[in-house]
Amino acid sequence: MRIADIGGEFALIERLCAHAPAKHKDLLAGIGDDAAVIGGIQADGSYLLVTTDMLVENSHFKRDWATAEQIGIKSVVCNVSDIAAMGGTPTFMFVSLALPPETQVEWAESLYRGMGRACRRYGVTLAGGDTTHGAAVTISITLLGRVVPENLCLRSHARPGDLLCVTGPVGTAAAGLAMMSAGLETPDQLKEKHLTPGCRLDVGPAIAPLAHAMIDISDGLAAEVNHICKQSKTGAEIVAADIPLHPLAVEAARQTGKDPLAFALSGGEDFELLFSITPQDRQQLERRGIDVVTVGKVADAAAGILLRLPDGKCQVLAGGYNHFS
Amino acid sequence: MRIADIGGEFALIERLCAHAPAKHKDLLAGIGDDAAVIGGIQADGSYLLVTTDMLVENSHFKRDWATAEQIGIKSVVCNVSDIAAMGGTPTFMFVSLALPPETQVEWAESLYRGMGRACRRYGVTLAGGDTTHGAAVTISITLLGRVVPENLCLRSHARPGDLLCVTGPVGTAAAGLAMMSAGLETPDQLKEKHLTPGCRLDVGPAIAPLAHAMIDISDGLAAEVNHICKQSKTGAEIVAADIPLHPLAVEAARQTGKDPLAFALSGGEDFELLFSITPQDRQQLERRGIDVVTVGKVADAAAGILLRLPDGKCQVLAGGYNHFS
Repeated sequence: MRIADIGGEFALIERLCAHAPAKHKDLLAGIGDDAAVIGGIQADGSYLLVTTDMLVENSHFKRDWATAEQIGIKSVVCNVSDIAAMGGTPTFMFVSLALPPETQVEWAESLYRGMGRACRRYGVTLAGGDTTHGAAVTISITLLGRVVPENLCLRSHARPGDLLCVTGPVGTAAAGLAMMSAGLETPDQLKEKHLTPGCRLDVGPAIAPLAHAMIDISDGLAAEVNHICKQSKTGAEIVAADIPLHPLAVEAARQTGKDPLAFALSGGEDFELLFSITPQDRQQLERRGIDVVTVGKVADAAAGILLRLPDGKCQVLAGGYNHFS
Repeated sequence: MRIADIGGEFALIERLCAHAPAKHKDLLAGIGDDAAVIGGIQADGSYLLVTTDMLVENSHFKRDWATAEQIGIKSVVCNVSDIAAMGGTPTFMFVSLALPPETQVEWAESLYRGMGRACRRYGVTLAGGDTTHGAAVTISITLLGRVVPENLCLRSHARPGDLLCVTGPVGTAAAGLAMMSAGLETPDQLKEKHLTPGCRLDVGPAIAPLAHAMIDISDGLAAEVNHICKQSKTGAEIVAADIPLHPLAVEAARQTGKDPLAFALSGGEDFELLFSITPQDRQQLERRGIDVVTVGKVADAAAGILLRLPDGKCQVLAGGYNHFS
């Protein structure tokens, strides 16, 4: 049976994890959130966070399109984003790296220069790793972090009545990728958003004490809303007209003949945060000058997970990136 | 410049790590030991250990030779061995996995079944990971562990006058690999040693309070002695005649026309432990019934790192596995 036949990545993960012991009294959240949460061991009462992400050449990046430094930056950012999505701050990083034997030392050094830049930006210390050979460049990063209990945001904590908000425009990275894939001249801003995205560690810790559930948008808004609803056992309604799109993404959609909404819903790697919050706490955020956009609301599970279109009609909110579809 | 031109894996690691911030007051040992050691954060005063290892198809394993379950077991064992080499015990594991899209679900399930078996054997909890697609099966595992300060064994703590001891025969896995590579009928015990090695978590914690430096033998005895000496700023003399060889490894050397000593010095993945200890503490171990073999002793740096051959002559102890030679 092929992986696509059972429904792809997430069905696979569920099957695989059934075979290994995955429960422990200190493991407050394990498989299925942006990072694992380990409690009960840290001296200051904070929780240890651990996230891991693997980037494979030609699946996640192309050496023709991105410089080594850009690949290095992105490989760190996608992990920092996972820690930010838990409400935490990153600490120590471990890099496992497979390189083809013919790799130029200078290329590998640039990769680490990019990682180093991102580490300095986000306060991360490189603490170890493994370097080995393989046919394709493969970068596997594990990042530790910490979060105080009152800031922890699990995917499973959304409640009916919460608003669903995002920290900025979504679909911009996908718009950049679409233009580059079509061989069109791509505005620098879109290219950068795809090749060297930032992440929202700047606002994550401020949102965290007020938010219920939080997740980073790495697989598209539709997938992330579904993750939150599935784990919180809720429904949701997203209002298409309220989803913030970058003007350049709209223009990219026009030029590539695509729907800009599809970039937002199914295109990943914007690394904005999606979170659920009560309307009152949403106002608090605004008073504190934290700029977010409401895109919908959490509903009872029975209501389903819906997308309200500009014509007022609703459809099931499906989609999102799947590694094995 | 190619990686081999600058001296391979370890020269590369040194160059790469110069580009990222790699110092922190809590990071007691970082790049260059079997695991990173993070102090100052755990409630019980123990240190957090973190190790990571990446296995790539056709570089580290062949799907023709090993079952998925065997690959799963080995991928966990090599990480547990790193924690054992620090004097610690393993806790939580994170698995990043790249699979070709055409991978059979059953194969992936068997891989996790093997991981699960090893996890249960060594008391490890699967706490998270990442599953993605790539052209070659790639398994990157990060394993956390803990060690009380008095048990911590760094590579850098060997002292002149210490004995160098191993916990069991070395070169057995390499002997198995050599026979399989030559297409010879390979005794099950040698095959197993190569395909599903164990590790010495059974004796590591007992040796740790008495040992000075410790390391696991993953790249061959010669490489590991060199690692300890380089980091401890010492010399050493290894006595060839004292290196314990499995009778089947000696027979494998005869059949493949190789030197059994080469298996021990340059063949990796036995996952026995090599440690330095005072002669008095070595006797203590013996009194406690912990069976180890003395293979040499630590000397001043000026003495060099030598191998004493059976004819009494000494040569420089070179060799060991290098991923980019």
